[in-house]
Amino acid sequence: MTSTKTSLPTIIIVGGGFAGLETARRLVNKPAEVIVLDRNNYFTFQPLLYQVATAGLEMPSVVYPFRRIFRTAKNIRFRLAEVTKVDSENNTLHTSIGALSYDFLVLATGTRPAFFGLDPSRVMTMKTTQDAQFIRNTILTAFERALETPDSKERKALINLVIVGGGPTGVELAGAFAEMKNYVLPRDYPDLDMECMNIHLVEGVDRILPAMDESSSRAAQKYLENMGVRVTLNTLVKEYDGVSVQIDGQDIPTHNLIWTAGVEANPVEGIDQVKDVKGNRLPVDRINRIVGYRNVFAIGDLAAMQTDEYPQGHPQLAPVAMQQGKHLGKNLIQIIGQQQPEPFSYSDKGTLATVGRNKAVAELPFGKFKGFFAWFLWMGIHLMSLVGFRNKVVTFFNWMSGYFRYDRALRIIQYQKPHKRTHEREPLEENA
Amino acid sequence: MTSTKTSLPTIIIVGGGFAGLETARRLVNKPAEVIVLDRNNYFTFQPLLYQVATAGLEMPSVVYPFRRIFRTAKNIRFRLAEVTKVDSENNTLHTSIGALSYDFLVLATGTRPAFFGLDPSRVMTMKTTQDAQFIRNTILTAFERALETPDSKERKALINLVIVGGGPTGVELAGAFAEMKNYVLPRDYPDLDMECMNIHLVEGVDRILPAMDESSSRAAQKYLENMGVRVTLNTLVKEYDGVSVQIDGQDIPTHNLIWTAGVEANPVEGIDQVKDVKGNRLPVDRINRIVGYRNVFAIGDLAAMQTDEYPQGHPQLAPVAMQQGKHLGKNLIQIIGQQQPEPFSYSDKGTLATVGRNKAVAELPFGKFKGFFAWFLWMGIHLMSLVGFRNKVVTFFNWMSGYFRYDRALRIIQYQKPHKRTHEREPLEENA
Repeated sequence: MTSTKTSLPTIIIVGGGFAGLETARRLVNKPAEVIVLDRNNYFTFQPLLYQVATAGLEMPSVVYPFRRIFRTAKNIRFRLAEVTKVDSENNTLHTSIGALSYDFLVLATGTRPAFFGLDPSRVMTMKTTQDAQFIRNTILTAFERALETPDSKERKALINLVIVGGGPTGVELAGAFAEMKNYVLPRDYPDLDMECMNIHLVEGVDRILPAMDESSSRAAQKYLENMGVRVTLNTLVKEYDGVSVQIDGQDIPTHNLIWTAGVEANPVEGIDQVKDVKGNRLPVDRINRIVGYRNVFAIGDLAAMQTDEYPQGHPQLAPVAMQQGKHLGKNLIQIIGQQQPEPFSYSDKGTLATVGRNKAVAELPFGKFKGFFAWFLWMGIHLMSLVGFRNKVVTFFNWMSGYFRYDRALRIIQYQKPHKRTHEREPLEENA
Repeated sequence: MTSTKTSLPTIIIVGGGFAGLETARRLVNKPAEVIVLDRNNYFTFQPLLYQVATAGLEMPSVVYPFRRIFRTAKNIRFRLAEVTKVDSENNTLHTSIGALSYDFLVLATGTRPAFFGLDPSRVMTMKTTQDAQFIRNTILTAFERALETPDSKERKALINLVIVGGGPTGVELAGAFAEMKNYVLPRDYPDLDMECMNIHLVEGVDRILPAMDESSSRAAQKYLENMGVRVTLNTLVKEYDGVSVQIDGQDIPTHNLIWTAGVEANPVEGIDQVKDVKGNRLPVDRINRIVGYRNVFAIGDLAAMQTDEYPQGHPQLAPVAMQQGKHLGKNLIQIIGQQQPEPFSYSDKGTLATVGRNKAVAELPFGKFKGFFAWFLWMGIHLMSLVGFRNKVVTFFNWMSGYFRYDRALRIIQYQKPHKRTHEREPLEENA
């Protein structure tokens, strides 16, 4: 480890998602030594991952290398590492690259899928770049195999798609796959009968997009149904054998079940879990300090700040994560400077969800919209939010090209060699 | 299998590289049923793979889905499959998706690295998209690990790079890595001493780019040396333990050895190997028919057509493969129409190799060039040759952006989940 003798306090940020990244950005060239840890060497723009899964964007367009982001920040160091344990008594973080001392620890590890008893090995999830590429590879490979499959039930199982969870991710995936089914796949697979392919969206409560207003839910459902998606409400999927799934009393053959129906906080070893907080989130006070700790903070999806307005904690959304991240960054500078930190309050700027070309729903402070205008807003906001000029340009071009040609250019099944050398070390002594 | 009753002859093309793709293109909407088999669902533009390995381009920019290429071709079917055996007595091809009957069989399986006794598991190769991404992941991960490595010899082993083979691939890789070392890595890794990093290029004969003129070889070597690459000539690497390698009597610690020093034809089970042809290539007559076979052809790197001008067969280059592919496509139409096929002759349009920004060498019918003009030509020709408008635009933008910002945007360590579902089948009966 590089030893930098310094009297500045050390802040370690675990996780470079929306929350952790914003905290780090607020600390650039401030009086603190900052270490950012992540298991990937890039930031992931999660809201567009579903387009990677559905062959509309390449994975590199929705990510951005951390080292590039922090290039001009003299006090910020990035490390590719995973956390094994927090030892809060000794202000020490144990990681895959050794033990690190901290003065302040910021946990921003987000969430992972929660399966509620379902076998995780049989379903696909949609949280990471790896997940998105896995979905793309699986679906495209299934179509190739369907061509060679004489058994009609097996063929249906290969090309049927069941998405469980009617939140934004599920809705966006269902819409994008419906567009593939309607515009792209018939041209790519003229030998396959596309009528055999059904896209199901299954939601546990009585409407999709339950976090939005009822009118938006209804509009989104109508869009999806017009595109051919079969929406089933009030239905929980509790069992799946990898071959077929029960929906509404019917047995739907499918090898492709995408699970977007629930998340739980990524646990951090050494931090006490509080059992009565939903989804394993960590309870924090109004400055995002974990209850019971002096100098350990949690932000974003991981944290549950219970306020009068949000008695269950804030919604687990990117804008909350970004605002908490920014706010904590500012507060840490205050605390280091012996000033009083300010309590956090969330400013809700609205919600958008897209279904397909010219189809989206938006609830914004200045009004509710659906259709082309909402879709146009959605595109603009997401394009602006992407990190990096290159990503903005390439994504814009991909969207325009896809829009005018009714196409999705990136129908690539991208196998990889297993990457042996990643986290293990090859000691020189052993072989020398 | 979809059964299409037809009296048209069936042509199976194995391998969709430069050669196989051109044959198929010549057969679009001609009187033949054509099946193209490849183990990937996309064509790979190999000449730019080295830029994927060196973080200058994303992998999707240098590939193109076969189904998209053949979308308007009613008589061409693509299948994702691997060949297991040719049964030429019964005109049958055995593959991972079953047995296929053919009237004419075109083999275009290209080459694979030849290691001459070296342990393949210790070196990296540069033939496929998977190889290129593996190199990028490995080198970027090694830099991350070097930051945490106290032992200075181990640290050098992590960041030193040895490229064996001074052909175009080796030269282009060495140049691109030298640019990363000079412009990108010092900004990304300010904590690492870049003087510790050495890039070695090792060639067996007395000059690099031995297929070009001596003046080009000298110019390319000078470019590389000015950029800091250590070029060693007349040296064969015969041993490598994964930890260090002997070059010129010196022991160079490195975990990163990239092998571009030799290739051999991909063998096709069931086709007789002829031992006296260099690199296991298959001897073909002047219409690319494999010697001893009536209706089985070989084209591109796989084939050795021994002529007066090329007693060892043509050079294993993309232009030869493309010309042979085109020519065979035309000849097959002739043969099907009971016309006489024409003998092949190669028209050499010149050679280019690039070293770095503003640095390349070109030998063209109208003159020899080096420096900026050759580099500019190289860019233009490669941009024009990329398949797909989207790829051209995205690549052009990446190049411009990299050129003016002295940067390589795609420094992404891209892990993947193991893709279980790829080639195995999950029979419905087993679980149902």
